[in-house]
Amino acid sequence: MHLNNQFARLCATSILVFAFASGAAAAEPLASWNDGAAKKSIIEFVRQTTTPGSPQFVPEAERIATFDQDGTLWVEHPMYSQVMYILESVPALVKAKPELATQAPYSTVLEILKGDHAALARLSMPDLEKLAFATLTGMSVETFAAQVQKWLAAAKDPRWKKPYNELTYLPMQEVLKYLREHGYKTYIVTGGGQDFVRQYAEQTYGIPPEQVIGSAVGTTYGYNKDGKPILTKDPKLLLNDNDGGKPESIHLMIGRRPVAAFGNTSGDQQMLEYTKAGDGLRLAMLVLHDDAEREYAYGPAQDLPDTKVGAFSQALYDQAQKQGWVVVSMKNDWKRIFSFE
Amino acid sequence: MHLNNQFARLCATSILVFAFASGAAAAEPLASWNDGAAKKSIIEFVRQTTTPGSPQFVPEAERIATFDQDGTLWVEHPMYSQVMYILESVPALVKAKPELATQAPYSTVLEILKGDHAALARLSMPDLEKLAFATLTGMSVETFAAQVQKWLAAAKDPRWKKPYNELTYLPMQEVLKYLREHGYKTYIVTGGGQDFVRQYAEQTYGIPPEQVIGSAVGTTYGYNKDGKPILTKDPKLLLNDNDGGKPESIHLMIGRRPVAAFGNTSGDQQMLEYTKAGDGLRLAMLVLHDDAEREYAYGPAQDLPDTKVGAFSQALYDQAQKQGWVVVSMKNDWKRIFSFE
Repeated sequence: MHLNNQFARLCATSILVFAFASGAAAAEPLASWNDGAAKKSIIEFVRQTTTPGSPQFVPEAERIATFDQDGTLWVEHPMYSQVMYILESVPALVKAKPELATQAPYSTVLEILKGDHAALARLSMPDLEKLAFATLTGMSVETFAAQVQKWLAAAKDPRWKKPYNELTYLPMQEVLKYLREHGYKTYIVTGGGQDFVRQYAEQTYGIPPEQVIGSAVGTTYGYNKDGKPILTKDPKLLLNDNDGGKPESIHLMIGRRPVAAFGNTSGDQQMLEYTKAGDGLRLAMLVLHDDAEREYAYGPAQDLPDTKVGAFSQALYDQAQKQGWVVVSMKNDWKRIFSFE
Repeated sequence: MHLNNQFARLCATSILVFAFASGAAAAEPLASWNDGAAKKSIIEFVRQTTTPGSPQFVPEAERIATFDQDGTLWVEHPMYSQVMYILESVPALVKAKPELATQAPYSTVLEILKGDHAALARLSMPDLEKLAFATLTGMSVETFAAQVQKWLAAAKDPRWKKPYNELTYLPMQEVLKYLREHGYKTYIVTGGGQDFVRQYAEQTYGIPPEQVIGSAVGTTYGYNKDGKPILTKDPKLLLNDNDGGKPESIHLMIGRRPVAAFGNTSGDQQMLEYTKAGDGLRLAMLVLHDDAEREYAYGPAQDLPDTKVGAFSQALYDQAQKQGWVVVSMKNDWKRIFSFE
């Protein structure tokens, strides 16, 4: 009896010690965020949705948070990294089929890769689609995975001369971690290719493949020459995870409405609306690229010429204000942008 | 110091006690299975893939197990429960549009529901498709969910006069639980409708919506008359999760190859092949319906007239033998089939 009591007391003490330790660790969440409305809204949201007894409490199984990737979790300028992958995969394609070297759009890409950046403007959207199907489909899912891994190991962002997965935003990494520490399941919902992003999401963001939702071609089941089953990537888009495609794919892949959603462009509008339209407290957040010095300024904080990348219109900004979305200023809300700073 | 030592000793003791307790609990896994090759193969598979240091050890993140539903986890005869849902939803449809009452196939369904079971034979596959689109699509995903919930609360299987979700196989429920206790993530991969099965999978199998993969129509994002975002179910099949569609959807929704897969018909062949073709130890298992008394006998153990439901050909049986899949005899391997027995 005495022993048991003493044991119980010691265990209670140890629980207190642990609680204190974790409390101390949690005392400084979102360390790369400046104090302000944006940081406060995240902390307040998490407190209200995860504190038992809170009127806004959300059961753990329903704590779903979705994140756009390009421009929300990592740099999207001057070009989506997957577009870089597509362009940089062309030489291998030409090596296998030399006749492509003189055919547009392959010939145009070869010029771009030789340093003629002006040639980039000659690539139309149909050109890019053609290049995408040529470099992203037609092979087995394993072959594609190996090709992406090989590229990732060598590719560098042109401005910072660093591997792409070092160009993630430290404050957003902290949000991912903070949400997960509070029982949220974090998903990527990207217009980028699902099979592409799955190759590095676990290592880069701690997000496993089954929590990466993205644009996707279908696959076809078949057998290779040794009779082994293979899945071959079809040259046909099955899911386009931009705009309304984001909530559509969230329903398809998760089957629950997110409680929190993060984006940075018009392509994320519907995901944020859909999230906010759920019952109870919801968090919708837009990252505003307004730091021309440390990163880039575009959208309403325009400093760059208009590009196809990262459209954040004044209308979206107005909708955010009207519907109570939080707009994060990279310039003012983020103490640090990259971990290497 | 003394206190600390004593605490450490007590904690070590308590760890031993817990280990012993959990060891004792684990001493009788799969209690509804008779001792035999099938039960042994499951236990041996789990031991080898989850024991640290085992040459066949699989890291927890990669422990994916996929289960067909109809005929594998619950009864599929005399008719898939979702087909019952489709038929039993017709009266509400006719109430909303009375002119349908005299039009085939709606009129045929009304006769079936009045007790004319012979009329069932008059429904062709195109008829069933037409009925499926009429009852499963065109509404918001929330409206559909509410309709399924309402149906589930009242519907009964015609033979046992019990709600469908009581007609799950107890031995398979034990397999689900046993795998999860050993760090496996359990998924349903069904030819049935994903949105349909998600309505009861958590309560019935402990499987959350995001781990239910099934045939699916697309949805379209839009706004209702109050300007609220809604997802409306399209009358167009996006994913057909039978045959090769199973591995295709596993790749789409999970992005990892299963380590274990369970099925019962030719529609599961590709999922089992795909699973077995992965590196290392894999488990592929087919449930053979050979118990005409306690459940049904069909497939190679045929006792029922040939139906569209539950095709398990001799060829599949032969492939299972050749490729080392485990064939489970319901009659011989299962001590109990249902929890209510």
